[in-house]
Amino acid sequence: MTGSLVIAGLGPGADALVTPEVSVALAAATDIVGYIPYVARIPPREGQKLHATDNRVELDRAKHALEMAMSGQRVVVVSSGDPGVFAMASAVFEALEGWTDAQSLDIRVLPGITAMLAAAAAIGAPLGHDFCTINLSDNLKPWPVIERRLRLAAQADFAMAFYNPRSISRPAGFVRTLDVLRQECRGAQLISFARDVSTPEQHILTVPLAEARAEMADMRTVVILGNTATRRVGRFVYTPRSVA
Amino acid sequence: MTGSLVIAGLGPGADALVTPEVSVALAAATDIVGYIPYVARIPPREGQKLHATDNRVELDRAKHALEMAMSGQRVVVVSSGDPGVFAMASAVFEALEGWTDAQSLDIRVLPGITAMLAAAAAIGAPLGHDFCTINLSDNLKPWPVIERRLRLAAQADFAMAFYNPRSISRPAGFVRTLDVLRQECRGAQLISFARDVSTPEQHILTVPLAEARAEMADMRTVVILGNTATRRVGRFVYTPRSVA
Repeated sequence: MTGSLVIAGLGPGADALVTPEVSVALAAATDIVGYIPYVARIPPREGQKLHATDNRVELDRAKHALEMAMSGQRVVVVSSGDPGVFAMASAVFEALEGWTDAQSLDIRVLPGITAMLAAAAAIGAPLGHDFCTINLSDNLKPWPVIERRLRLAAQADFAMAFYNPRSISRPAGFVRTLDVLRQECRGAQLISFARDVSTPEQHILTVPLAEARAEMADMRTVVILGNTATRRVGRFVYTPRSVA
Repeated sequence: MTGSLVIAGLGPGADALVTPEVSVALAAATDIVGYIPYVARIPPREGQKLHATDNRVELDRAKHALEMAMSGQRVVVVSSGDPGVFAMASAVFEALEGWTDAQSLDIRVLPGITAMLAAAAAIGAPLGHDFCTINLSDNLKPWPVIERRLRLAAQADFAMAFYNPRSISRPAGFVRTLDVLRQECRGAQLISFARDVSTPEQHILTVPLAEARAEMADMRTVVILGNTATRRVGRFVYTPRSVA
């Protein structure tokens, strides 16, 4: 039997946001690998093994998945959202770098609805003009890199989507992020906090940047800062397509 | 009958990338509105009207959709990719701005797989680290704004996804874009051209920035420039998660 490895995005939470392509791959898998809460979203199937692992072991998880595929299994690595945005696809390619034999494996990445797109849809259309996407976790990059990117993005007047804004182990980072943004952007610029998007617990809060507090975000929140033209219309927030 | 308006993303082309949520909305619609090639992707249904309109009439199309919803129809406006990324959602909210009565309508945005995510998946994981997303069309913003954003994004070492890189009516813009990028970035930085992603005609080409030519892109191409760490592994291109 020839093994294969699929890196699939489950979307932000709702089953209605899982693409048919991903559902087909999940049904055909012999082994499903991923972070515990994502694997918990997969309904159990006869003859299919679920391998749920803890967070922060992405590279080990990727190696394990490659090993099983090399031994002939049909492996699916699951990510929340899109596997290519701050998720498992890069970890698998990192694991593949030192392993020439595995590079000829049947490997495919299946895209998913990444959190910022579901959040933007729930908010209105805050990413309707040029934007950037920044992972605020400093586990994998030093804070000065993040700060520099925030300042340059503000100078470019990009709308900004932030992943992993705040965690218990990193309480200070998002405080500093808001400080930097307030130095570079207008206080009236709208910032939206989208928690648990696409689930029954979804909660959206939009405030002017001047009124934003770090406690408005946690690890289940995607934060979207509008650009200088972003505005409210009725209950929605959107960024116009054009620049004057 | 109470009307409603759904702004739905059809994904980049393949039916397997249309979310179940969007399929349900399409099945329930009385009227489907959109740019001709996108409406052409909807199979005809008894009792359902298709309203296909030309490009560059987004605001008129949005107003027409709102009018039908106000008169009690269940209207779906379709976009390719994700409706919130350089697509119809912002146009609908623009049309809504001057029309207070319509602001209490049942309006929902349904996310879709935007072209850059499908392109990234086909390439490997070039957007696995911080990135920005820029619409290169200068129909709705002046060239100096685009140039400034390109330079700042390069200084931030963002990977960059470019939409609408080149059209017959704007042959010079992408030539200038490549010139600016070559001034700001390393010649060895990898740039990928993803044409007709997720369709049988899908074509992916990756070259060093120094070897990129404007003719490698057209309006059906999404272009992704890696950051300074982006590299090849086997037949894939990916951006590592970490910065040293």
